Amino acid sequence: MLKDFVKAVPPEKEELKEELKAARAQLAGYQMKIKDAKLPVMVIFEGWGAAGKGSVIGKAIHDIDPRFFKVKNFSAPTEEEKRYPFLYRYLLEIPEAGKFTFFDTYWMEEVTKGVLSGDISEKEYKQRINSINTTERSLHDNGYLILKFFFQIGKKEQKKRLEALEADKDTSWRVNEADHEENKHYEQFLDVYDRFLEDTNRSVAPWYIIDAKDKKWAELQVLRFLNQGIDTALKNQALASPILQNIFPLKQMPKLNEITLSDKTMTEEDYRVELEALQKELNHLHYELYRKKIPVIIAYEGWDAAGKGGNIKRIAGALDPRGYEVHPIASPEPHEKARHFLWRFWTRLPKTGHIAIFDRTWYGRVMVERLEGFCSENDWQRAYNEINEFEKELTDWGAVVIKFWVQIDNKTQLERFTERQNTPEKQWKITDEDWRNRDKWDLYEGAVNEMIQKTSTTFAPWHILESNDKKYARIKALRIVIREIREACDRK
Amino acid sequence: MLKDFVKAVPPEKEELKEELKAARAQLAGYQMKIKDAKLPVMVIFEGWGAAGKGSVIGKAIHDIDPRFFKVKNFSAPTEEEKRYPFLYRYLLEIPEAGKFTFFDTYWMEEVTKGVLSGDISEKEYKQRINSINTTERSLHDNGYLILKFFFQIGKKEQKKRLEALEADKDTSWRVNEADHEENKHYEQFLDVYDRFLEDTNRSVAPWYIIDAKDKKWAELQVLRFLNQGIDTALKNQALASPILQNIFPLKQMPKLNEITLSDKTMTEEDYRVELEALQKELNHLHYELYRKKIPVIIAYEGWDAAGKGGNIKRIAGALDPRGYEVHPIASPEPHEKARHFLWRFWTRLPKTGHIAIFDRTWYGRVMVERLEGFCSENDWQRAYNEINEFEKELTDWGAVVIKFWVQIDNKTQLERFTERQNTPEKQWKITDEDWRNRDKWDLYEGAVNEMIQKTSTTFAPWHILESNDKKYARIKALRIVIREIREACDRK
Repeated sequence: MLKDFVKAVPPEKEELKEELKAARAQLAGYQMKIKDAKLPVMVIFEGWGAAGKGSVIGKAIHDIDPRFFKVKNFSAPTEEEKRYPFLYRYLLEIPEAGKFTFFDTYWMEEVTKGVLSGDISEKEYKQRINSINTTERSLHDNGYLILKFFFQIGKKEQKKRLEALEADKDTSWRVNEADHEENKHYEQFLDVYDRFLEDTNRSVAPWYIIDAKDKKWAELQVLRFLNQGIDTALKNQALASPILQNIFPLKQMPKLNEITLSDKTMTEEDYRVELEALQKELNHLHYELYRKKIPVIIAYEGWDAAGKGGNIKRIAGALDPRGYEVHPIASPEPHEKARHFLWRFWTRLPKTGHIAIFDRTWYGRVMVERLEGFCSENDWQRAYNEINEFEKELTDWGAVVIKFWVQIDNKTQLERFTERQNTPEKQWKITDEDWRNRDKWDLYEGAVNEMIQKTSTTFAPWHILESNDKKYARIKALRIVIREIREACDRK
Repeated sequence: MLKDFVKAVPPEKEELKEELKAARAQLAGYQMKIKDAKLPVMVIFEGWGAAGKGSVIGKAIHDIDPRFFKVKNFSAPTEEEKRYPFLYRYLLEIPEAGKFTFFDTYWMEEVTKGVLSGDISEKEYKQRINSINTTERSLHDNGYLILKFFFQIGKKEQKKRLEALEADKDTSWRVNEADHEENKHYEQFLDVYDRFLEDTNRSVAPWYIIDAKDKKWAELQVLRFLNQGIDTALKNQALASPILQNIFPLKQMPKLNEITLSDKTMTEEDYRVELEALQKELNHLHYELYRKKIPVIIAYEGWDAAGKGGNIKRIAGALDPRGYEVHPIASPEPHEKARHFLWRFWTRLPKTGHIAIFDRTWYGRVMVERLEGFCSENDWQRAYNEINEFEKELTDWGAVVIKFWVQIDNKTQLERFTERQNTPEKQWKITDEDWRNRDKWDLYEGAVNEMIQKTSTTFAPWHILESNDKKYARIKALRIVIREIREACDRK
């Protein structure tokens, strides 16, 4: 799209000035509407070195109140950042509802520079494009407005600008070897940029090529597209997003009422012996996965009082405390609620070689949020696919993702609730909400069945832990964790 | 204290086992009390390589619910982390109220290793010790329990352990060159460790030397001190902390009612001319401070409708958007309220070469929090000193700290409130709370006078911006910002 880009004709000087003034006022007028509509706006600037992105960002924010925007820029990832998935450092910075974030370069730069340097293979390139398109669509579907601008200047114009910047001691530091490389091999860079733009140009997050030869005209083009995009997004707030068909391979799973529990028991003695042996094995494995830099994510869901806490403790007890973290997930805090529902899990990902254990997870979207009406029907219906995409992203990164559903029957829950209620040290574990949820057992069972059917992908299947006998469930969990990590270690 | 450490006599084997069991149960019992009392607990482990810190941490957390603790460890600071003050990366990780954080090494390691490698001079060492002691006291005074353990083993014992670790392929990666260095130059390291322990051993954050030759006995010693420390802290929750005498040089400042406003005006024409010239100058300076890696913090406080927003805009408008951030400060979110009141400002510090502009600041503690009773009298009375210490830390780091009080008179505020109320586009700027605060003008005036007297240190004085005429105030602010940054650039 860059190569066959047709420049629009700029207005005459006076006209341009007038239109610019009006467009700035229009943008300023939008800020309260965006706030009221809780619309999060991502404005991404990419382009040739010295094309003037920074200067236009400076102009664009001029009339927006600092309470309503942030400017973020990205340089090459640090060693620490490289220990997280590619998307990680970008997603951390997404705006909250009702606010703008202006990005001075985003994920395009890392990908295109990687292709040009040869650090990113063709296969990796395609994977990144897929990650980007999937993520931008998921952000859009969850209410984000994403607008992307590419600042275009010609080879000669760039050369002239680089020379001018270098001639001035205040600005010479802004020009580096990479800029000269870009100019020297302009045509080669053009190919890679053009391909990236075409590969990521979707209506959920469209690209706009900006003719950046004249500063004022560049600003006007950006403001026109920005105002238009905001206008459209505000009109579309009430619209639902399409529910996509599942494209991930699924495993056949039983329904909860098909799971037998009474025969899944274990003697105290067998339990002691096995527990010690398995914990020892897991402890060794932990060092191995640390050396091999494999990230592990263990997700626990299950009925209240099913024994999640005790089960997690038996896993965690085998691990070196420096290499794992348990994340108890409660209802989101305001700054979390104001972002994409997966954001608070992105921020809690482990780095390579580490283990993150989630006590309750992103599946809250299709259980409590669904049943309590904390999100719309369209939201939770889309979420199965969004979650599968998220977990695919994690496993493609190399993570071992293990998901446990801790299962008990209704009668066992009642016994455990009653026991908690009657034991002073355990009373804090039981709340009115637990009793209220219990009343909705059937609704939850339906939601859980749907969740397990729709999100048991081959790369991140659910494992059922039969937990009427907690000892049995703990040993089963340890075995699965060991098996999955062992397989990942052996592959590496 | 390490050199003349007298080992306690461990109990007999059976007795030890019994006591250990009791001590673990006692710690487990404390977790709910800590939660209810909203006590944040920092447990810091330091010691010789291979002394067994990790293993004891693993034991200590065994009976604590994952909802109530985190384990954090630290390695050498990254290049990115080095662009923040020394304390920064440690303070980010302090626990929230009602929870434990176990630190596997904290700031001791960075300081002692720096001394031993020669990277930290004697002067810097003393500065760090002072920073640490001040910060630990400030944390303690704000309700934190801090317990510090140093794991002691002899030279021969360490050598034996390093060899054993290296002999096993699962653990050999845990031994590095630095461990061997430590063992080889044991006596030299001992000197530096011992000095650090003595220099930072205060009752607000005491050190306990742990005889770490036997694992179980080490665990018991830790648990004994931990349980004792928690017991004491729970008993002391209601106690107030001493208000320390000011030790910082203060500037003489006027009272608000001594400031004349009516003569501080400017013509529209002079304003236009000056604004353009000053913004241009500041724009150039921004690049210079970026090159010289000077961090800048600009703090705005002032009456509602005094013109803070517009003033900030004139500063920000001159800056490259990639090099500054405006932080509008509202009431703290739950995770912020659950920590030391300065935490949410530590997390928003600029890195070197960047500018952070705060629209309202940490001074909320001695204004709105004081007057609305959001903190205790003891809290806000201590805060003047805690804030001066915070700003001293920033200026010692090399930051330029500029504080503005934007002043208007009572009549002008009423006019502006009324205008906002009557102008549809401005109505969002005026709330019922603004009117309520206006009723408390005299109380606020008293609090502001006390604040300005007590926190106008020579290194971070208040600057009054007479803002009945906003143009005058904007030009004055720009001049002060330019002057302060210019001076810092010239010094460097």
